[in-house]
Amino acid sequence: MSFLIDKLAIVGVGLIGGSFARALREAGAVRRVVGVGRSRANLEEALELGIVDEISCSAAEAVSDASVVFISVPVCSIVAVVREIADAIPSGCIITDGGSVKADIVSECDRLMRPGCFFVGGHPIAGTEHSGAAASFASLYQGRRCIITPSAVTDKSAMETVAKLWQVAGADVCIMEAGRHDRIFAEISHLPHAVAYALVHAVGSADVEGENVLSYSAGGFRDFTRIASSDPAMWRDISLMNRKALLNSIDGFSASLSQLRELIDRSDSQGLADFFTTSKQFRDGIL
Amino acid sequence: MSFLIDKLAIVGVGLIGGSFARALREAGAVRRVVGVGRSRANLEEALELGIVDEISCSAAEAVSDASVVFISVPVCSIVAVVREIADAIPSGCIITDGGSVKADIVSECDRLMRPGCFFVGGHPIAGTEHSGAAASFASLYQGRRCIITPSAVTDKSAMETVAKLWQVAGADVCIMEAGRHDRIFAEISHLPHAVAYALVHAVGSADVEGENVLSYSAGGFRDFTRIASSDPAMWRDISLMNRKALLNSIDGFSASLSQLRELIDRSDSQGLADFFTTSKQFRDGIL
Repeated sequence: MSFLIDKLAIVGVGLIGGSFARALREAGAVRRVVGVGRSRANLEEALELGIVDEISCSAAEAVSDASVVFISVPVCSIVAVVREIADAIPSGCIITDGGSVKADIVSECDRLMRPGCFFVGGHPIAGTEHSGAAASFASLYQGRRCIITPSAVTDKSAMETVAKLWQVAGADVCIMEAGRHDRIFAEISHLPHAVAYALVHAVGSADVEGENVLSYSAGGFRDFTRIASSDPAMWRDISLMNRKALLNSIDGFSASLSQLRELIDRSDSQGLADFFTTSKQFRDGIL
Repeated sequence: MSFLIDKLAIVGVGLIGGSFARALREAGAVRRVVGVGRSRANLEEALELGIVDEISCSAAEAVSDASVVFISVPVCSIVAVVREIADAIPSGCIITDGGSVKADIVSECDRLMRPGCFFVGGHPIAGTEHSGAAASFASLYQGRRCIITPSAVTDKSAMETVAKLWQVAGADVCIMEAGRHDRIFAEISHLPHAVAYALVHAVGSADVEGENVLSYSAGGFRDFTRIASSDPAMWRDISLMNRKALLNSIDGFSASLSQLRELIDRSDSQGLADFFTTSKQFRDGIL
């Protein structure tokens, strides 16, 4: 059986990068995998676990003979990594990423590509609450969506290779313009996180006659606020990188909340029933 | 073995009332239970399931020889039920309820009690997404909190009996002033529901170039918005009955969200990291 690609370089062998490597190896789609990262201990664990065949602390060195480079570092560092490796990327090599914000990354990385090197932006919609190479597993992307965000200059054949790799990893590939991706994920993912963080901030700071009300939280509150336990650094980065779309989503949400507040303030029984019913219908529609 | 109370009347034999009856019967704490309600089919099911010994469509008739009456109807109907039975309550009888808003109910019901009859407000912090007698089960209150909200005129002995019943049903009893209860639950329960409904309303209505963004929702969004699938009529009632405290909680939340919006707007990296970290610490503290 022939390999889909020869050598894959994974920059950032954590949950996302490690699972991508595992899935492609398990499918027999890649001949050799090199792992790159800042944490020697994590890389050595990845090597021991058989996620990668070799490890390197130099991204430029590791990508020098790669067919495909997958960059799965925090979203704020992706462009810096591409800048660091830009001169070392061999001709014909495809660079792709797993960042959850896309427009700025795609336009910056497109500009950094030398002729004959190809950048393709991607965003696999998958994850767990764990991180690091040891947390990765081959089936993470099984049945999950992966958004590919080509730009006007994206090479069609490179995009098809990246799409094929995600399909082999088990994902359903969806092609979408990067700005549109960022507006959709501002609504469906970044806004809920902002709201959850703000809610826990408000309730945690609330002072009802000197008592911390969080001690009265039950299952509903815990489920509702689980996402406020996510990594603060990651959400700082996402908020900064998708700033404009997120501000717009926050404003849309604030308008809905103001509408609800107004209904409560004037004790509008029918209006409240209608508001809650509309929300319930939206929510039940995604079950 | 002797019973703790003789005859218990349950007005509204649903998840809450049915589970209270089951738990007390299972503990051998009550000799006889009569169920009252508007739905004949539900009452007959409660009878068949052995939750109650007899059923009645007249609350006044059912309470006429009761030792304790537990009112577990929607929060907006509790005062109306007490008004309906006020003249039929026998001397020495204790009336208690399971409503999740307390201040108005306690003050209204206190006023409706004839001399020798005792009202004690209560709020068991338990529930499931199911409703009706068939959904009830004896262990619903096991290890859950039940808040008892005495007023200045609450009979101490009656309060102790109600507390004892909840303890026998498996609950941890907590005594709290009704207004304080309403302010705490505005924060920890009613605000999160309002926010979840507003979020789903906003995201469900959001239009990113003609596309319904809800189709991109993943597990995080589903978990976060589960409570927006709750019964709209119940949340309309709670919003109306805890209006003042809920408006105050919404304003506190809006201030937190504005603070976060401002940090994003001016790309304040350190401020965002601090905000998210504070929230995460609050959230992790309740695990």
